Amino acid sequence: MRTVDLIQRKRDGEELAPEEIVHLIEGFTSGQIPDYQMAAFLMAVYFNGMTDREVSALTDCMVRSGDTIDLSDIPGVKVDKHSAGGVGDKTSLIAAPIAAAAGVVVPMISGRALGHTGGTLDKLEAIPNFRTDLTVEEARAQLRQHGLCFMGQTAEIAPADGKLYSLRDATATVESIPLIASSIMSKKLAAGLDALVLDVKVGSGAFMKKQVDARRLAQMMVGIGRRMDKRVQALITDMNQPLGYAVGNAVEVMEAAQTLQNVGPTDLTRLCLELAARMIYLGKVAASMEEARDIAQRRLLDGSGYRKLKDVIAAQGGNPQVLDRFELLPNARGVREITCPRSGFVSAIDAEDIGRACAAMGAGRDQQTDRVDPAVGIILEIKVGERVEAGSVLCRLYYTSEENLEEASQVVEGAFRISAQPPEERDIILEVVG
Amino acid sequence: MRTVDLIQRKRDGEELAPEEIVHLIEGFTSGQIPDYQMAAFLMAVYFNGMTDREVSALTDCMVRSGDTIDLSDIPGVKVDKHSAGGVGDKTSLIAAPIAAAAGVVVPMISGRALGHTGGTLDKLEAIPNFRTDLTVEEARAQLRQHGLCFMGQTAEIAPADGKLYSLRDATATVESIPLIASSIMSKKLAAGLDALVLDVKVGSGAFMKKQVDARRLAQMMVGIGRRMDKRVQALITDMNQPLGYAVGNAVEVMEAAQTLQNVGPTDLTRLCLELAARMIYLGKVAASMEEARDIAQRRLLDGSGYRKLKDVIAAQGGNPQVLDRFELLPNARGVREITCPRSGFVSAIDAEDIGRACAAMGAGRDQQTDRVDPAVGIILEIKVGERVEAGSVLCRLYYTSEENLEEASQVVEGAFRISAQPPEERDIILEVVG
Repeated sequence: MRTVDLIQRKRDGEELAPEEIVHLIEGFTSGQIPDYQMAAFLMAVYFNGMTDREVSALTDCMVRSGDTIDLSDIPGVKVDKHSAGGVGDKTSLIAAPIAAAAGVVVPMISGRALGHTGGTLDKLEAIPNFRTDLTVEEARAQLRQHGLCFMGQTAEIAPADGKLYSLRDATATVESIPLIASSIMSKKLAAGLDALVLDVKVGSGAFMKKQVDARRLAQMMVGIGRRMDKRVQALITDMNQPLGYAVGNAVEVMEAAQTLQNVGPTDLTRLCLELAARMIYLGKVAASMEEARDIAQRRLLDGSGYRKLKDVIAAQGGNPQVLDRFELLPNARGVREITCPRSGFVSAIDAEDIGRACAAMGAGRDQQTDRVDPAVGIILEIKVGERVEAGSVLCRLYYTSEENLEEASQVVEGAFRISAQPPEERDIILEVVG
Repeated sequence: MRTVDLIQRKRDGEELAPEEIVHLIEGFTSGQIPDYQMAAFLMAVYFNGMTDREVSALTDCMVRSGDTIDLSDIPGVKVDKHSAGGVGDKTSLIAAPIAAAAGVVVPMISGRALGHTGGTLDKLEAIPNFRTDLTVEEARAQLRQHGLCFMGQTAEIAPADGKLYSLRDATATVESIPLIASSIMSKKLAAGLDALVLDVKVGSGAFMKKQVDARRLAQMMVGIGRRMDKRVQALITDMNQPLGYAVGNAVEVMEAAQTLQNVGPTDLTRLCLELAARMIYLGKVAASMEEARDIAQRRLLDGSGYRKLKDVIAAQGGNPQVLDRFELLPNARGVREITCPRSGFVSAIDAEDIGRACAAMGAGRDQQTDRVDPAVGIILEIKVGERVEAGSVLCRLYYTSEENLEEASQVVEGAFRISAQPPEERDIILEVVG
């Protein structure tokens, strides 16, 4: 089997056999296939896509490239939730505790901020002393005791994916639906899950700009899961404005605490309840989605989700009191108000711009090795659809250094679109796949 | 300027500016841009092509990557001829001497056999002691004295092209029209030419399988030349059977000698006269193509082309008598006849199969470092359009070793298509571009 022939066949739109995909990925991981051949293959995949059979073979191969976690000895159905990156997306901090409080076992493996999107691990680390570097044994113990743990991905999980991602990042082949789908699914499937709820964002702040692409990505991931006997459902959700009001690290922990006490933003609460309900349903705690939604609602209202998050913060080394006393969280030094230039209705808030401005103030990172500033953030004062007057406050920037503040302010000012007519109302949940 | 952004823009179908092409090629040649980024870029070019401006910038950049030969102090117009690889293509050994005999200065830079196609240098080296490794100074002296020299490309000419070609070969990006066009033109333009006649083959034995692709390649090369103030014309010629009767190295020298004495095959003679006439016209020896064709015809009939080739063989260390006494050339040890399975008309002779069989017997090479056997070859007994009887000889294989002989015979047998009706007659010259 000559690698160049496989590249050529993919280039010419032919389907490769599973063993041919294995040859490519194993050869690349072991260093026998050089980066330049894999780069050409990836670009051919960018143009010609992959069939279901190919993308399943690719995912399976990446799962088998490293360690897999076996959670079968822990009682209960193991369900994770994954969001494909967003701005102001603190749903993991809310939906996971609600689902765990309902009896689902949630081994939550999360990522870090990159570019304009935030990361759950960075948000949790805004809590002083919170540890995300659990060993597998610590995670197991915590899952048995609390039914929920938050941890990062280890280098031993799907290393082929890590190597492939670095190459994609350098060769403009990140934005390929089968490559995104197999990357996400390989990491999740290696973590010993029984079921998975996906939240695929679509809109200006998301990776997927068009709903048709988001749907294809969701369908592909659901299909990969099904062919590996995992129950997978995906929501396609709106990211044409940040989720909730808070964007940053400490400020998002605060908003998560408020939401778990049922005083959070409407859009965020609605999405978290639906995600938690699907986790409860796939986790076989409820026999129908109707019952699952009812359970999620009750776990929110009775405060058990809120208490679950406190327990987990304590278990992972943090002070659970941060959820009541926000002054225990890192606080910014200065605040700048962004005001509205004219009266009208807010018709859009570019989530990517808000995310970029927040990252420029220090909340995000350009490179994987950059440190984040947990204190900085942006808090919206209004959401899409609301009426605003000239001079009223659109949002506030919380900063610790004036470096990049001007640049961030300008980006934020450009993010708000004000129009004479109110925009059409749009549900946050656009579609369900699977 | 980030390389990944340039890859992305090419991937998305945008045009790159000349300085961006320079960044890519200079960075790649110097080693600052890694092979994997260039591989991804090449695959994106395969899918999205290049504009005229891009392909000219690429060609110019490759010319400037190495030495250029300055022939401006040698009197006369310098005209080369280039064929895009074929089977049985010995036109350089015929058209170049005719043009040189008419007063054109022909610095003929030729290639070697690769895959199923032959190479002029290998054919000439079938002549004992013939030297193709002329220094630039020797080539200059010979051009002044004889108006013609045959030489190989030096490593100092367009090294970026050599590096890029190796990468294309390993990444299934050879078959891209702008990459082929810039590769050919960069080598030619670095050699100090004033004008160039191109012979773009189309058909089963050629790189271009479809006439529309051959036309695009020809147009692109003519355009590159025009933008660099060089006169370029291209013929698109039929390669749905080998050119002439002889395929191999020594046997093609013999057929060239016969053709220069006006007893060669009709198709070969017609093509060589047209190529020589265009060299004479672009070389400003004639004011019109009509006059140029008349001159070429006379230089063939009066034997001056034949004498020119003899002079050049002598000048480059060979024995010119090989053109009269073929026993002085390497001769094969055995001969095998391939006979016709049934009566009918020859409707096609797959040139690629004939070339592959010939290469398998030792006339070609799989790798650039393989040695060729000058003695072996295939001589057709019939051409497309002729009537054959069951049992009559289609061709003869001349071999020196029985290794691979069976395989070669089978490939050759499969190359002939016999049909009940005679095929439509087709001129060897399909089109003229430029």
